[in-house]
Amino acid sequence: MADLLIVGTGLMGTSVALAVRDERDVVLRDATPDRVSAAVARGAGRAWDGRERCSHVLLATPPAVLAAELLRLQRDGVGRTYGHLCSVQAGVQAEVEAVGADAASLCGSHPLAGSERSGPEAASAELFAGRPWVLCPSALTGGPALAAAGDLAAACGAEVVRLTAEQHDETVALVSHLPQVAASAVAARLLMHPAASGLAGPGLRDTTRVAASDPALWTDVLALNAAQVGPLVQLLADDLAELARALRVLAGAGARPSAAARGVVTDLLARGRSGRSLVPVKRGEHDRDFVRLAVRVPDRPGQLAGLLVSAAQAGINVEDVRVEHLPGRPTGVIELLVQRGGRDPLARALQGDGWDVVPTTL
Amino acid sequence: MADLLIVGTGLMGTSVALAVRDERDVVLRDATPDRVSAAVARGAGRAWDGRERCSHVLLATPPAVLAAELLRLQRDGVGRTYGHLCSVQAGVQAEVEAVGADAASLCGSHPLAGSERSGPEAASAELFAGRPWVLCPSALTGGPALAAAGDLAAACGAEVVRLTAEQHDETVALVSHLPQVAASAVAARLLMHPAASGLAGPGLRDTTRVAASDPALWTDVLALNAAQVGPLVQLLADDLAELARALRVLAGAGARPSAAARGVVTDLLARGRSGRSLVPVKRGEHDRDFVRLAVRVPDRPGQLAGLLVSAAQAGINVEDVRVEHLPGRPTGVIELLVQRGGRDPLARALQGDGWDVVPTTL
Repeated sequence: MADLLIVGTGLMGTSVALAVRDERDVVLRDATPDRVSAAVARGAGRAWDGRERCSHVLLATPPAVLAAELLRLQRDGVGRTYGHLCSVQAGVQAEVEAVGADAASLCGSHPLAGSERSGPEAASAELFAGRPWVLCPSALTGGPALAAAGDLAAACGAEVVRLTAEQHDETVALVSHLPQVAASAVAARLLMHPAASGLAGPGLRDTTRVAASDPALWTDVLALNAAQVGPLVQLLADDLAELARALRVLAGAGARPSAAARGVVTDLLARGRSGRSLVPVKRGEHDRDFVRLAVRVPDRPGQLAGLLVSAAQAGINVEDVRVEHLPGRPTGVIELLVQRGGRDPLARALQGDGWDVVPTTL
Repeated sequence: MADLLIVGTGLMGTSVALAVRDERDVVLRDATPDRVSAAVARGAGRAWDGRERCSHVLLATPPAVLAAELLRLQRDGVGRTYGHLCSVQAGVQAEVEAVGADAASLCGSHPLAGSERSGPEAASAELFAGRPWVLCPSALTGGPALAAAGDLAAACGAEVVRLTAEQHDETVALVSHLPQVAASAVAARLLMHPAASGLAGPGLRDTTRVAASDPALWTDVLALNAAQVGPLVQLLADDLAELARALRVLAGAGARPSAAARGVVTDLLARGRSGRSLVPVKRGEHDRDFVRLAVRVPDRPGQLAGLLVSAAQAGINVEDVRVEHLPGRPTGVIELLVQRGGRDPLARALQGDGWDVVPTTL
C-alpha cells in the first residue's frame, strides 16, 4: 500500500509529489500517460498500476472531472481518505454530493500558490513553501480526511488556514479573481490605441501584469466561482460607472466647479488608498513599514550586484528591488525597499562606498 | 537678464532647475517663500527679485493658477517665451486663450516623470533623464516658444515627443489615468472584507500599487482630463458590467453550460492578454523578449547581492528582479528577468556557483 496517490500530474500535483517524495511513498496517475512519465522522470514518484491501495488520494485534476474520478476511485476502494486542490470550493462540494460520492472521506483544499507556467516540467518542490494553503472541510468531512489534508499541506511547507468553502470562494474572488478581471479589462482597452502604450510607465506595467495569464484557464476559474465573482465585478462596474458620471459632470462644468462631482472622484481615490494599505508587502507587514532608497547607476551588468553587496556589507536587508531603466541614457535608477529604520544607515553606507544615492530620499 | 525663471519650486520645477543649473542662470519664484529657500538651499538657483527679465519662463504651478500667472508675467514683460508642465494640456490651452494671454509666446509640455513624493526636497536632477517629455504646441504657438520648450526638455535629458494637446490628453487618459482609476476601484473593494487581504499574493500587490497615490492630487488630474478619462472609464465600466452579466448566467447555469456566457469571459481575458503584450518592459522591448529565472535563496541579508554578483561575473545583464519572500520559512525565491538568450548561460553559471536554480525554468 502506497502512502499517497496523486491523480493529475500537472504543475500542482507534481509539485506536491516533489515536496513530499523524501518522506512518503508516492504513486502517480494521469489521464495522459506522457505526463506521468514526465513526472516520474522528475523524480516525483512511481507510476500507479491502477490497483494498488493508497492511504491518501490527492485529486489534482481539473474540477470538471473531479467528482466522477472520485466516485470511481471510491467504488474501487483505492483510498482511505481523499483530497483535492481546486481553486474554487463550493461548486465542487455540491457536485461531489450530487454524484453520490462519499463526502465523509473527502476534504477539499486550495494552496494559494501557482505560476503562469503549467505541466509537470514546471513543477517545484518549493511551490507551496510558506504560502497559505486553505483547508475547506464540508459539514460531512470526517476527522481522518481533514487530518490527512492538513498533514499533506504542512508536509509541503505551506501555512495551513481553515475556511468554509463559501468563505474561501468569497476571499479568492476578492483578492485574486477581481484583480485579474480588472487587469484584463484595463489591458484590453489598450487595443483601442496601440501606439499610446509607448508612453507607458511603471504604473501601467504593474497594473496590467496579471493580464498576461492564460484566458482558457481563467475562464474556468471565473465560471466556477461565478456566484462570488459576478457580484464583485458588478460592484466594481457600478463604482466605475458612478465615477464616469462624475467625470462627465466635471468635463461639462467649464468654469463652474462641481463640488459634488469632485467629491465622488476623491472618495473613490481615498477609499482605494485605504484599501491598498491592507495589502501585505511581506506577510503581516505593510507598505508604510518600508521606505525606498533610490540610487543612480550606469546601465551595465554588475551594478545592481555591486549595490547589493554594499547593502549586505552594511547589514541591511533589502526587501525588494525596482529597476528603472532610463532608455537612451547610459544610466538607470535602482530603488531599494528597506525597513524604515534601515534607510538612513543604508544611504550613508552606500554613499561611503561611492554610490550615487538620490539625495531626495535621504 | 537670467536664462530661466522657474515659477513654482515643487518637485517638478526644482527638478528642472537642478537638471540645467550648470548650464543656465536660473532664478526661482514660488507663492510660498519657504519653498524658494528650500530650492535655493538645494542649489537649484537664485531667488527671483520680481523684476529681472528672463529669456524663458517655465510655469511649474498648479494648472488652476497657471493662466492668471502667465497673464501677469506677460503684462510685466518678464519673459521672451513661456512654457508649462501640466499633466493635462487642452484645458490649459483653452483657459490661456480665454483669459486673453499671449498664446504665441507659450508652448505647453508634459514630462512623463514623477514621484509619489512632492516638494523641492524630493526634486532630482535625474528625474527626467530618458523619460518621454511631450511638447504640445497649440495652433498659435510661435517658433521661438516651441524651440525654447524643446531645448529645455532636451537639456533635462528627456526624450522629446511632439503631440497635439488632444493627442496627449487622450494618451495619458489611457496609459496613466485609466490604470490609476482601476487600481483605486479594486483596492477600494478590499475594504468590504479587510481580513481577506491576508491571503493576497503578488497579483493583488502589483494590481493595486498605484492606488497608494495622493487622492487630492489625482482628483485635480482626473477633473482636468475629465473629457478624455470619463468615456474610457465608462467603457471599462461597460466591459465589466457585461462580464458581470455573463458571470450571472454562468452562476445560474448549473449543469447547463452556457457557451455564449463563457465566450464573453474568454473574450475579455484574451483581449486583455493582447493589450498587455503592447506594454513595453524596456522601451521598445516587450515581455516576450524576456524570460525569468527563479533561484531559491536563504532569506537573509546579502543573498540577492551574491546572486547578482554571480550573474555579473557571467556577463549577463539582469533587467529586473522580483523577490518573493516565503514567510515562516528561512528561504525566499528571487526571479531574475533576462533577455531570452541569456537565460540558459545564466542558469549554468549560477549552478556552477552553487546557487539553487529552480529547475523548471531551465
